[in-house]
Amino acid sequence: MKAILIIADGLGGRPSDMDGKTCLEAAHTPNLDELARRGAVGLIDPIKPGVRPGSDTAHLSLLGYDPYQVYTGRGVFECLGIGMNVEPGDVCFRANFATVEETPDGLKLVDRRAGRIDAGQDDLAAALAEIALSDGVKFAFKASTQHRGALRMYGGELSRAVTETDPHKAGVHISTARAITNDDAARRTAAAMNEFTRKSYEVLKDHPVNKARIAAGKPPANIVLIRGAADLPHLTPIDRLYGVHGAVVAGAALYRGVALACGMTRIDAPGATGAVDTDLVSKANTAIQALEQLDYVFIHVKGTDNRGHDKDAPGKKKFIERIDAELIGTLMGKLDWNQTHLAFTGDHTTPIDYGDHTAEPVPILYVGPNVRTDAVAEFGERAAGRGGLGRWSGRALPILFNYNNWLPKFGS
Amino acid sequence: MKAILIIADGLGGRPSDMDGKTCLEAAHTPNLDELARRGAVGLIDPIKPGVRPGSDTAHLSLLGYDPYQVYTGRGVFECLGIGMNVEPGDVCFRANFATVEETPDGLKLVDRRAGRIDAGQDDLAAALAEIALSDGVKFAFKASTQHRGALRMYGGELSRAVTETDPHKAGVHISTARAITNDDAARRTAAAMNEFTRKSYEVLKDHPVNKARIAAGKPPANIVLIRGAADLPHLTPIDRLYGVHGAVVAGAALYRGVALACGMTRIDAPGATGAVDTDLVSKANTAIQALEQLDYVFIHVKGTDNRGHDKDAPGKKKFIERIDAELIGTLMGKLDWNQTHLAFTGDHTTPIDYGDHTAEPVPILYVGPNVRTDAVAEFGERAAGRGGLGRWSGRALPILFNYNNWLPKFGS
Repeated sequence: MKAILIIADGLGGRPSDMDGKTCLEAAHTPNLDELARRGAVGLIDPIKPGVRPGSDTAHLSLLGYDPYQVYTGRGVFECLGIGMNVEPGDVCFRANFATVEETPDGLKLVDRRAGRIDAGQDDLAAALAEIALSDGVKFAFKASTQHRGALRMYGGELSRAVTETDPHKAGVHISTARAITNDDAARRTAAAMNEFTRKSYEVLKDHPVNKARIAAGKPPANIVLIRGAADLPHLTPIDRLYGVHGAVVAGAALYRGVALACGMTRIDAPGATGAVDTDLVSKANTAIQALEQLDYVFIHVKGTDNRGHDKDAPGKKKFIERIDAELIGTLMGKLDWNQTHLAFTGDHTTPIDYGDHTAEPVPILYVGPNVRTDAVAEFGERAAGRGGLGRWSGRALPILFNYNNWLPKFGS
Repeated sequence: MKAILIIADGLGGRPSDMDGKTCLEAAHTPNLDELARRGAVGLIDPIKPGVRPGSDTAHLSLLGYDPYQVYTGRGVFECLGIGMNVEPGDVCFRANFATVEETPDGLKLVDRRAGRIDAGQDDLAAALAEIALSDGVKFAFKASTQHRGALRMYGGELSRAVTETDPHKAGVHISTARAITNDDAARRTAAAMNEFTRKSYEVLKDHPVNKARIAAGKPPANIVLIRGAADLPHLTPIDRLYGVHGAVVAGAALYRGVALACGMTRIDAPGATGAVDTDLVSKANTAIQALEQLDYVFIHVKGTDNRGHDKDAPGKKKFIERIDAELIGTLMGKLDWNQTHLAFTGDHTTPIDYGDHTAEPVPILYVGPNVRTDAVAEFGERAAGRGGLGRWSGRALPILFNYNNWLPKFGS
């Protein structure tokens, strides 16, 4: 038996999205409707009812973990997701190239994303390697997409109990990282963060990439701000829990990172970008190929959430229709439906009017030979509320695995 | 007011059971359908969604306890269920009479069930009493059905953090019990287990019962293998939690044991066997008689699960029809429905194709004067998915007690 879990980020919506319908309800989704007809639907609270999920915590919960027990912060997933090695005891951060200007009383933030820089980031990252930190702290930095990157600190006692150097808004001075707990590890980490941020400005301010940006009228990427300190969570890998091995197919680093932390193998689909311009047919074909060797595949699609954050209802509807036609359509034609169970859901709601995550439950469908079908033959928020699966919290992946008889027994 | 909880073990099924229907859906159950019509139905996850229940953990959860907090292992329930006294600090085991043969490098397991021995077990058990264990460890052994029995160790510091002497499969040497934790109690318990197992062979190998078995060409029951170490869980009794007292009517030892651990009184129904040949009319009449004195009765029926493990779909369907006609039919005619609430459910799903427990939610019905009725007038998995009670996890008994206004207030 094989299993596929598909999570469309920020899939859920509100009636205000499109004149009384959510984007999903308004979208033309004949393939998802057909899977709903063949299977069963319900409503899932990604974490629990009335909890507004982050993308990282929601994914941990949907994959079968208790985020209240295991979540340590986002940075470590970003580091893992862009291919950095992370060891127990390391502290990881999310990082931004940003634009600051000197003022009499310190560095002031001008553009938190350095004009969404899209060239030269690797050169800037390489230049950062000349920074030496005090007190034996070592680091690794890697640029990812646009202004984004990740920073790993290691060497000696470090702590994630620290604030940030990223002030999160332009027009104010950059923040000073401080220890949250009263111990040497937190103080040492905060000092290293402040030193790294300050020295990143010294290294980057006159870098040729930035001289060229200034000459072209673009904001220079002259500092690295860091946030989201995290260390490696103690996750028992999925392989150990269930005795099966799978892969993640995701264009966005965070989701690859969560899946890697859970023990999945990363498989990159050509043309997968983690954005709305992603190649969904390629992701489907990559998943089908991976299933020849592996037990299961987790496919993550990000564009739904991006369009929600953009408050772009027609764009979100259109991206859902692309998921239906290109991702689901390709899978439907190629999967062996006698030997496969599939689950499709979202990790939270991102309604158009709010443009950020909300806590409503999300529709979910399961389809395959062992699923007890229901009478619902369409896929959407309110259709799922009439589904035979009812409503529950988290654990979408273990529930999928149950249909394949992959769960260990608790008790005897 | 009176209350009856009925759990049909392994009640749930899958569409593959019987040509698109579960055994329960395929069965002719006019009485359960009538109770569904008069009451309300829903789906219950015995432990929680995506958790594959054991019978012991599922029952603890349905009776209102958190098995993640209180479950210590199965052995203690088996000991209690066959009438042994268990004190705090004792360690209990499930035990098998088995057949071993001597080899140059130790005892090799030939038949884990000693040919499912069905006569002479009490004589063999009596012979074991002559075993003396070192280091002040005392024990009691009792045979139950066929090859099964239970062992209680007591006296001094003991621990359930031990492995087993039962290798769980024929053709290999018997296992050596080892301490899992690094402490004297665990080491002392493991040593006593190995000594008991070795000495059981010395006592049983030439026992007259076995000489007769060998002469008759049957495998001798020449050793006792032990597994499932458990101590008494810390359960606040139901009487203390809710101020009511009830009884368990169950033919199988495990379920009596769980109920006894929760504070119920054991009442044996004549002809109740814990198997498919049980007398279901007798169980109904025993329950009705018990309710003259007591507040509630928990009736456990095992045959559904047995037929599921046997992968016998017609047999499971037929046993469900017997439950409907003989157990439910008898109760319906004799209960005072103005003064009684009744709940009927299963402790897990045992689909025919898999022949073991799976994690799907199980249908449940509540009926009685305080139940808010719904529109569903049949009892089955998919009908329950349309029910007015929705879907939730565990606590079937406290929910039943609530209709009788027996619950204490949490907070004020």
